[in-house]
Amino acid sequence: MSLLVVGSVAIDSVRTPFGVRERSLGGAATHFSVAASFFTQVGVVAVVGEDFTAEDEAVFHERKIDTENLQRVPGGKTFRWVGEYGFDLNTAQTLDTELNVFADFRPQLSEAAKRAPFLFLANIQPGLQREVREQVDARFVAMDTMNYWIERTREELLQTIAGVDALIINDAEARELAGEPNLIRAARKVLTLGPQMLVVKRGEYGAAFFTRDSYFATPAFPLESVFDPTGAGDSFAGGFMGYLAQADRIDDATLRRAIIYGSVMASFNVEEFSCDRLRRLTTEEIRARFREFKEFTQFEI
Amino acid sequence: MSLLVVGSVAIDSVRTPFGVRERSLGGAATHFSVAASFFTQVGVVAVVGEDFTAEDEAVFHERKIDTENLQRVPGGKTFRWVGEYGFDLNTAQTLDTELNVFADFRPQLSEAAKRAPFLFLANIQPGLQREVREQVDARFVAMDTMNYWIERTREELLQTIAGVDALIINDAEARELAGEPNLIRAARKVLTLGPQMLVVKRGEYGAAFFTRDSYFATPAFPLESVFDPTGAGDSFAGGFMGYLAQADRIDDATLRRAIIYGSVMASFNVEEFSCDRLRRLTTEEIRARFREFKEFTQFEI
Repeated sequence: MSLLVVGSVAIDSVRTPFGVRERSLGGAATHFSVAASFFTQVGVVAVVGEDFTAEDEAVFHERKIDTENLQRVPGGKTFRWVGEYGFDLNTAQTLDTELNVFADFRPQLSEAAKRAPFLFLANIQPGLQREVREQVDARFVAMDTMNYWIERTREELLQTIAGVDALIINDAEARELAGEPNLIRAARKVLTLGPQMLVVKRGEYGAAFFTRDSYFATPAFPLESVFDPTGAGDSFAGGFMGYLAQADRIDDATLRRAIIYGSVMASFNVEEFSCDRLRRLTTEEIRARFREFKEFTQFEI
Repeated sequence: MSLLVVGSVAIDSVRTPFGVRERSLGGAATHFSVAASFFTQVGVVAVVGEDFTAEDEAVFHERKIDTENLQRVPGGKTFRWVGEYGFDLNTAQTLDTELNVFADFRPQLSEAAKRAPFLFLANIQPGLQREVREQVDARFVAMDTMNYWIERTREELLQTIAGVDALIINDAEARELAGEPNLIRAARKVLTLGPQMLVVKRGEYGAAFFTRDSYFATPAFPLESVFDPTGAGDSFAGGFMGYLAQADRIDDATLRRAIIYGSVMASFNVEEFSCDRLRRLTTEEIRARFREFKEFTQFEI
């Protein structure tokens, strides 16, 4: 496989202004790998319990995602997330989280997984991210995190951040990590922590990309109906990393296209509950939306 | 003159996290006309009192802005705005507003003003906007408004909106005007009210442009220090309308460039208090920043 991801595979309960789904396959690694699977061969490192059904597993199989490193704990219960979105859909309110089988998770990677050239550390306890990072001799490593780890395990998080090439977080996280309300200054600060690049996800406002000497930004796809924002950031990261792994090249032009593919995958992901939209997505639809991005951001000097 | 603006010329008191200015030339028509003056010949329709000094007037003169339609009221007091910005600089808190000479303002336009081909109705009482609009036989008319008029004079505002070609408002205003939290659907609704185009200003997130059959969006210029956001939207509108008047053409490519020029002017405007930055701006700086927009939004398919 060319791209490996470690992160949560979860059972979600989601309530949005448009509907409720009591049991929904979720988790950062799920949304990431399904999105990335349109671009490259993906392997997922995670742990699930006995409540993880054959139907759940089928989502991975139908997208040809390698589940050799998906551990099952007999008698265990899969990670649970219960969340709710308000009318503006911008921020999820977490009503409940149960770590369950993730509490004692010690990832043991297969030999094939250890040789993956591209690695993504999805949002999860930073010590666990580092444990995986150290087992994989990847050429390009990116990671996500969240306010919870920034606030509670800052030192450990900084150690993990120091060992990756790219950080992919949202704007509130970038500001909080840097302790700086201006995003551009926050980005400069983050780039002194180790990574050579920072991708900032801005939800309905798009994404921005910073390196020490370049800057790129895109608005989001203009969606008339956002149904469920869960996994938007993870499918963004999946499109971004999936495209890089497919291109097998890290240069400015490729990175910019990767940002657009990330935005494309996120825009599809939020159109329906869980991975429903991505499961029936086609590469033609992805290409068409990519071209639409070019269309609606283009101007001539 | 090729571009006429009606709106407030004001004396502001502004407090930001970076400083305080007790007396500062402000007002929508001021920021608009100073920004637009880099592109075309601008005339301003407004009213001031005796406290409007020769120094205030010099700001208009040095930018060659026509002040023939700037009425002075002997013994009167200029419109006052007292506002404050919090740490994130996103929203101004209005501490005090005094209409003063604007309370009884009846604009009487000169013959030259009535023949202006481009007209901008800056944020002001919608009845007053319409009074000016009806006196000018312009080829292209755009307007701004704010939540205050949307909430209190909705019917009158809708009449004014029905008579313009373009509405230039911020995203909260677009959502409120349409009664619709999704911006894209809000935009479609707004485009049924009369205007053929809607420009949505999104502050640090850039701008979006809607017509019935096209869409364009741009991120904002990445500013490391925003000093005073007052007048950002007005200088945006000034750059937008100024460029259109200079180009003397209304087509999709020209409108897209106008959105970028608007973004450029707003980005300079917020770098210092009042019009300070624009007063020492050069056309070379404007062109350079325009090219930077192209640079940081460009990607190849």
